[in-house]
Amino acid sequence: MTSSDTFAALAEVSTATITTVLLKKGIRNGYMRGPKPLAGDTRRIVGPAFTMRFIPAREDLAVPEAWASPRSTRAAIEDMPAGVVTVADARGVTEAAIFGDILVARMKKRGVTALVTDGTMRDAAGVLATGLPVWCTGAAAPSSVAGHIFVGWQEPIGCGGVAIFPGDIVVADGDGAVVIPVALAEEVAKLGVEQERFENWALAEVQRGLPLPGLYPPDAQTKARYDAEKKR
Amino acid sequence: MTSSDTFAALAEVSTATITTVLLKKGIRNGYMRGPKPLAGDTRRIVGPAFTMRFIPAREDLAVPEAWASPRSTRAAIEDMPAGVVTVADARGVTEAAIFGDILVARMKKRGVTALVTDGTMRDAAGVLATGLPVWCTGAAAPSSVAGHIFVGWQEPIGCGGVAIFPGDIVVADGDGAVVIPVALAEEVAKLGVEQERFENWALAEVQRGLPLPGLYPPDAQTKARYDAEKKR
Amino acid sequence: MTSSDTFAALAEVSTATITTVLLKKGIRNGYMRGPKPLAGDTRRIVGPAFTMRFIPAREDLAVPEAWASPRSTRAAIEDMPAGVVTVADARGVTEAAIFGDILVARMKKRGVTALVTDGTMRDAAGVLATGLPVWCTGAAAPSSVAGHIFVGWQEPIGCGGVAIFPGDIVVADGDGAVVIPVALAEEVAKLGVEQERFENWALAEVQRGLPLPGLYPPDAQTKARYDAEKKR
Amino acid sequence: MTSSDTFAALAEVSTATITTVLLKKGIRNGYMRGPKPLAGDTRRIVGPAFTMRFIPAREDLAVPEAWASPRSTRAAIEDMPAGVVTVADARGVTEAAIFGDILVARMKKRGVTALVTDGTMRDAAGVLATGLPVWCTGAAAPSSVAGHIFVGWQEPIGCGGVAIFPGDIVVADGDGAVVIPVALAEEVAKLGVEQERFENWALAEVQRGLPLPGLYPPDAQTKARYDAEKKR
Amino acid sequence: MTSSDTFAALAEVSTATITTVLLKKGIRNGYMRGPKPLAGDTRRIVGPAFTMRFIPAREDLAVPEAWASPRSTRAAIEDMPAGVVTVADARGVTEAAIFGDILVARMKKRGVTALVTDGTMRDAAGVLATGLPVWCTGAAAPSSVAGHIFVGWQEPIGCGGVAIFPGDIVVADGDGAVVIPVALAEEVAKLGVEQERFENWALAEVQRGLPLPGLYPPDAQTKARYDAEKKR
Amino acid sequence: MTSSDTFAALAEVSTATITTVLLKKGIRNGYMRGPKPLAGDTRRIVGPAFTMRFIPAREDLAVPEAWASPRSTRAAIEDMPAGVVTVADARGVTEAAIFGDILVARMKKRGVTALVTDGTMRDAAGVLATGLPVWCTGAAAPSSVAGHIFVGWQEPIGCGGVAIFPGDIVVADGDGAVVIPVALAEEVAKLGVEQERFENWALAEVQRGLPLPGLYPPDAQTKARYDAEKKR
Repeated sequence: MTSSDTFAALAEVSTATITTVLLKKGIRNGYMRGPKPLAGDTRRIVGPAFTMRFIPAREDLAVPEAWASPRSTRAAIEDMPAGVVTVADARGVTEAAIFGDILVARMKKRGVTALVTDGTMRDAAGVLATGLPVWCTGAAAPSSVAGHIFVGWQEPIGCGGVAIFPGDIVVADGDGAVVIPVALAEEVAKLGVEQERFENWALAEVQRGLPLPGLYPPDAQTKARYDAEKKR
Repeated sequence: MTSSDTFAALAEVSTATITTVLLKKGIRNGYMRGPKPLAGDTRRIVGPAFTMRFIPAREDLAVPEAWASPRSTRAAIEDMPAGVVTVADARGVTEAAIFGDILVARMKKRGVTALVTDGTMRDAAGVLATGLPVWCTGAAAPSSVAGHIFVGWQEPIGCGGVAIFPGDIVVADGDGAVVIPVALAEEVAKLGVEQERFENWALAEVQRGLPLPGLYPPDAQTKARYDAEKKR
Repeated sequence: MTSSDTFAALAEVSTATITTVLLKKGIRNGYMRGPKPLAGDTRRIVGPAFTMRFIPAREDLAVPEAWASPRSTRAAIEDMPAGVVTVADARGVTEAAIFGDILVARMKKRGVTALVTDGTMRDAAGVLATGLPVWCTGAAAPSSVAGHIFVGWQEPIGCGGVAIFPGDIVVADGDGAVVIPVALAEEVAKLGVEQERFENWALAEVQRGLPLPGLYPPDAQTKARYDAEKKR
Repeated sequence: MTSSDTFAALAEVSTATITTVLLKKGIRNGYMRGPKPLAGDTRRIVGPAFTMRFIPAREDLAVPEAWASPRSTRAAIEDMPAGVVTVADARGVTEAAIFGDILVARMKKRGVTALVTDGTMRDAAGVLATGLPVWCTGAAAPSSVAGHIFVGWQEPIGCGGVAIFPGDIVVADGDGAVVIPVALAEEVAKLGVEQERFENWALAEVQRGLPLPGLYPPDAQTKARYDAEKKR
Repeated sequence: MTSSDTFAALAEVSTATITTVLLKKGIRNGYMRGPKPLAGDTRRIVGPAFTMRFIPAREDLAVPEAWASPRSTRAAIEDMPAGVVTVADARGVTEAAIFGDILVARMKKRGVTALVTDGTMRDAAGVLATGLPVWCTGAAAPSSVAGHIFVGWQEPIGCGGVAIFPGDIVVADGDGAVVIPVALAEEVAKLGVEQERFENWALAEVQRGLPLPGLYPPDAQTKARYDAEKKR
Repeated sequence: MTSSDTFAALAEVSTATITTVLLKKGIRNGYMRGPKPLAGDTRRIVGPAFTMRFIPAREDLAVPEAWASPRSTRAAIEDMPAGVVTVADARGVTEAAIFGDILVARMKKRGVTALVTDGTMRDAAGVLATGLPVWCTGAAAPSSVAGHIFVGWQEPIGCGGVAIFPGDIVVADGDGAVVIPVALAEEVAKLGVEQERFENWALAEVQRGLPLPGLYPPDAQTKARYDAEKKR
């Protein structure tokens, strides 16, 4: 299981750095295309994925009555443990929202950490007002019944062109959202913290006037200097 | 004719709620894809549509001289009554703007309520400075002659994938813009106000900790409770 | 060579006006589709283009080691003279960034005026913090090796659907970025300043209530009036 | 259950006519966008949907070894009863195929009626040679592991922007593929046959020179004439 | 008016050559993006444009009953003179067709020369069977009511990103469809025939082994040789 | 250098199989998105890449006169050795062609093996008539000057989202075109031939009724059986 130390470490690592670390581990497809922070200023969030799956609407099924069915988004929300990051597969559809303020407010109440989707929010001002951090592709007025049917939760899904399995670790910040296969989370956290530390050091070196070649990526001399300074 | 009461009522109803009400009346295609508020903080606007139609530019016709023709955007603007919402069909083209600050300033002077288009604005900072609320797909420097020919006004048009007839009622807010067929405006306003009231009540219930099933959508017990509280 | 007077003049001319002047000189394709200011409030920038070219990644080549090759982005950056506007051809790809904060910080240190690209930035908050004005298509976490190989600098490139040659003059503001063929720069600057002056005058006329027909574009009477007022 | 009479009737009704009949029953979203016949000359096919679901590839999972897992496409194929129409959700991805000749040959051997997908085929010539009718979005050389992970079968899916449930009735011909909710199949078949008969009659009337108004759609007089002729 | 000689001449000029001639006359935007021949082997067609305009569907209007309204496609078809090329603005929508076999059969009966649209056909096999040459973007089963409302004919329209006015001359062949502003038709025909003659000669020269430089485009020597051979 | 044996071997391996082999060698991005055979029935072609690079048109440069410049497509064609596969970077633009029949006829005369591009052909019927196999994205009437400027040859390029270096090995067939880094060509050929042999055997096994699990991919028993049969 992913330890709280790992979560704490990942909260210090940017999604940019995580993609670099994942690439070194052979994972090229972890960054979700589409989801961006709905609020302008956004802290980084980390948590295990709780997945939701939508398919296209069909008029015999996509009716307000579906909201009360046992396989409804409502039932899924009541099943969310505190701390999860809800990841909803909306197939990149932007013409109909998947949630509005009421459902998002309930997620917030249940202790959900954040919501990530390749779809849109309706009543986006109200969604922001709930205080739940949201990564999505924007706002759209029509409700989910206009474009989506909810078919299940905690299934493997695609979101933003990326595979998400329940329990995978999701990190999101100003650059967007990335998924870390749960088996790699601890190692990515460790390598990410170290990479982040080096990048901060290298940035400071650039700020005091050093040129890039030899510095970033570091040659042997730079590495030695960095290792020496790190020890202090 | 649409009464001022209807306009006042619609000003209290979000575009999200309007799409839900329209769906109940069988209208699935009223939300325009593309137009978003150009300014960050945007009040809701309501008004009857005044339509403008552009077709693609052709070099023998799309020349600055066209601006002085009798079938020009200038003539159309001088024909706009106070209170209308100008809706311009720009075919979703984002590479050339349809208006800049001077034309938008004149619309503002004439008492136009707002401008909605699936095209772009040029000199967007100047457009914002005019004070006219604008829903569009962003900014682009090239003028309309680089991509558009204006061919007429007060015709049926498409805008953002939606049919707009002159006089249809347009409502726009942070989620975007929606059109209400004029024949349905009064009923949509009435149902919308009621729906909005219920949603606010339901949101407050969620805020104080109630779970969603049975609450939203409401079961018989919730309905009874809501009706009872509403009477007070 | 483009004089400092020309640069100073262009700094007073909006990209909107420049596209209009270019159109009169027969240039319809100078506005880059895609690049928008990364920071909300953006001053206009002007400078000669310094071009960079990326092609799609291939796994045998797009590896972190490539950053240290002589044909690297690092070498290109060390070759940038002060005052240039870096224009990078990223083929419109938004899934992998071309630069992060460290490289952009070094450009800033070298006195680069601005960066324009049809690609994305990673660690966008850090990029903003460097203070270098950037026009791009947004943020993405993955590094350039995930999507790009850098193949050369100071070559002719495409960016945002527009041809850019090293030394062409680039102007960018809130509406986006436009390129002026260097041979036309002086004339565009001169005509642009005059056009801008007229547009400001026309806008003031609209603000005090004049209708558009005859004013904008100006008929003979308006032209005479404008010429008379200009002389004062 | 859908009777063999219903299947036989639907085989005589074009997908064009089926969409018209579905529209009268309130179903606007039954036509899949994307799938087209891979072979030039294509007979109409009908059958109950057998669904397959793919999500995006991730390097830790999308490896050739996955083909041998119990949740593999191979296992799904061995579970297909004769007569079904396989419908595969490939999320509209065209860069990696979902099947090649070997898997399609096995489907043919198992008595599958046809394959419909919003993805692509590899070794398309070989796929055609198997004799299984295929509706897809074209050919692509890369195998499924380059873009897809198979996650399950006989689940609700989206395909071409349409919801498909296992057992829904799929009809496909030269115009593409349409899904009929299983509960409506019998009625759609009955109405479709009648509609088809009328359209053939109307076409013959046009061929012998009758104008369209009053004929198509038919006015009372035309209806009477049609009814009279039909009786003969 | 465009003479029959001009039509006859244009029938000998490829759309490729016409775009080259138009470019020399300053027209860069005459080639329609999207429309391609529905039938594999296609003769070139020429004729004056008869325009039709569709806007997006709205459920209160896009109903089968609309087909019988006075502003219907049926009425427009009955208004088409023999020899015209019907050009229909379908806004590039591919999800719902604009015509099926019955309407196209009636156009054929009325002596229409061809149909060009940036939309799709339904019952495409039936449309082909009518014998009317059609340029479109493919086949789709849903009828026009599923995606379009017809709003008028013989208006200026956009089709495939190009402006079309009633009476403009349309030429279409295997490469697609191009519009010639009617005022330029005679000159384009004359220059086109000459250009076509030169290109055929140049192709023959290439076939017998001549290299391209100096030949195509021709230098002075080649021009002299061509002029001499042409006289024979 | 790539031997003629390697070319001969690759001619027997499908692009589908090559992508599978490349994947095993860590190359995921070798298949070009877009290029498809222009002719219906297409033999496989193989050869070393000869690259051409186009950037977007600009009116001061994209004029017929440019065809005679020393950096012209004509000069590039005269520089092509027999046996190469011309690969042209057209940035995926479909609105203007890069070549017509005359230039393609000259390539054929010079012994070019095939042409691959992510752009379009004009006078497509004439291009087919030259007999040069062409992989492209279709036909468009406008000439290259309407959308492209040619800027160089034998440079690294992108084509269809893939990096191509001069001398890389290109293989194309009915599924499209794939590039093999030259350093891997020999090994890919060897592994490809073996993979192809196994797939043919597996297909035959399927044709005689064997189920997929255990067969494809093969388990130990199947491998042993295959090895035994192969020896005969």
